[in-house]
Amino acid sequence: MADVPFEVIREPAAMRAYAEDKRRDGMTIVVVPTMGFLHAGHLSLLREGRRRGDLLIMTLFVNPTQFGPNEDLDRYPRDEAGDLAKARECGVDIVFAPDASSMYGPLSQTSVSVSELSQPLCGAARPVHFAGVATVVTKLFHVTLPHVAVFGEKDFQQLTIIRRLVEDLDFGIEVVGMPIVRERDGLALSSRNAYLSQEQRAQAPALRRGLLAANAAFDAGERTALTLLAAAREPIEACTLGAIDYLELRDAETLEPIDTVDRPAVIATAVFFGKTRLIDNIVLGTLSVG
Amino acid sequence: MADVPFEVIREPAAMRAYAEDKRRDGMTIVVVPTMGFLHAGHLSLLREGRRRGDLLIMTLFVNPTQFGPNEDLDRYPRDEAGDLAKARECGVDIVFAPDASSMYGPLSQTSVSVSELSQPLCGAARPVHFAGVATVVTKLFHVTLPHVAVFGEKDFQQLTIIRRLVEDLDFGIEVVGMPIVRERDGLALSSRNAYLSQEQRAQAPALRRGLLAANAAFDAGERTALTLLAAAREPIEACTLGAIDYLELRDAETLEPIDTVDRPAVIATAVFFGKTRLIDNIVLGTLSVG
Repeated sequence: MADVPFEVIREPAAMRAYAEDKRRDGMTIVVVPTMGFLHAGHLSLLREGRRRGDLLIMTLFVNPTQFGPNEDLDRYPRDEAGDLAKARECGVDIVFAPDASSMYGPLSQTSVSVSELSQPLCGAARPVHFAGVATVVTKLFHVTLPHVAVFGEKDFQQLTIIRRLVEDLDFGIEVVGMPIVRERDGLALSSRNAYLSQEQRAQAPALRRGLLAANAAFDAGERTALTLLAAAREPIEACTLGAIDYLELRDAETLEPIDTVDRPAVIATAVFFGKTRLIDNIVLGTLSVG
Repeated sequence: MADVPFEVIREPAAMRAYAEDKRRDGMTIVVVPTMGFLHAGHLSLLREGRRRGDLLIMTLFVNPTQFGPNEDLDRYPRDEAGDLAKARECGVDIVFAPDASSMYGPLSQTSVSVSELSQPLCGAARPVHFAGVATVVTKLFHVTLPHVAVFGEKDFQQLTIIRRLVEDLDFGIEVVGMPIVRERDGLALSSRNAYLSQEQRAQAPALRRGLLAANAAFDAGERTALTLLAAAREPIEACTLGAIDYLELRDAETLEPIDTVDRPAVIATAVFFGKTRLIDNIVLGTLSVG
């Protein structure tokens, strides 16, 4: 397979023509959608993507339609030059970095929504968020024509929604979820960590401590949701600067609430530190050995 | 390009694998989506489709999600054996005829909607209809991977919605609209004409007569919507067995109502004959010579 030169593509039609060409050449295309401001979490997705195909496309687009009117679209951190350098280092072939105006024309009015999965958890506080995500991911799939798409497990609900979207709309794309990458103290990497004050940053690892406490109780045999959630809540509530948005235990596939853990289940949480909303999750039992 | 044997494919994944294979071979794929019970209108789409590509796929699927709870899903006419014979005669290579259960799994919950364009006209009486259409067309595009898709202009609003869907979601598919095929007396061909009693059938050409009257007034220089609509209404209201659902003049691209025809405009109508709802439309001025 011939090497392809590193390139930044801005126009959706040009991206699709490029991808169609490579597909016809028999290349396996992998896409890693991002909103940029890359951290080690993104880099782990890119490295996995590199391993899984011939042509690695990273998309770099801060999608306005997945932000609510009072959210942080305007201040969302950006560093395109830095992102391109990191992408190149990780072996990305093509960065697709469109302008919002080339993604959404003036008559644009089509949206994709995944109904039940988009309601709870982050969807409750962010009512338009997941329709924005499902729509832009559909568009990005249509212009990058991937065989494989790689997403992080930190956005657990998003990953669940995308798996459902791909299945329901017959995309025929393999969706790969990658483990959360963390700071040494357990804080999940996020572009939004940059918003935290020093004091908030010091308290933020409590999310992880809470989830680990619940997981330890699960490993010790506890199966009652209320008890597991109480174990998770204690360290998080001890954060004087944090306010829990949600802390819930749900079926890991349907995201329906469950009382007793008799199937794969996730505990997911969102905590506000000031205006900054951090999320984390754990699929119970997956840290156990064998 | 090697000939391909006529084949009926039932499974979405098998259809996609087949289409991917032909795309990689460099074939141009044309799809004609239908709900079967083919009449001469469908056949004109198939013949145009045959002309436009190397591989002609007809889809044959009475999509349950585009029927409302009180609509005619259960009695919608079907004749698969006849349809396959006609498809073959028109040069169709592949008929994709899935079961509803292979299109919609038990957890299926993703829908595609085209908002403003789906509200008026047929959307007012059929609130879930166009989301059902947009969703199934998205799925059919994903499994047939067409370069070109052919639809009839009789479903003018549907065609407008599909053009918008294709543009908004970056499908990169050429959408071809084909003129309405009519009986000698002007009635637009429709699978639902089979529901009409002899008396209803005798009155049904009034839709066409009304639209032609409005078009004649337009060609004579009339530009006021109310006047054009009055010209169309007279013959239709003379039908003792018909009840107008809507009769409207709208921008042919945005479907917004307009008072004065200063841009491409369509008059569209739906008329109930008993439980049977017939539709027809005319783009003003398109019958004029030069």
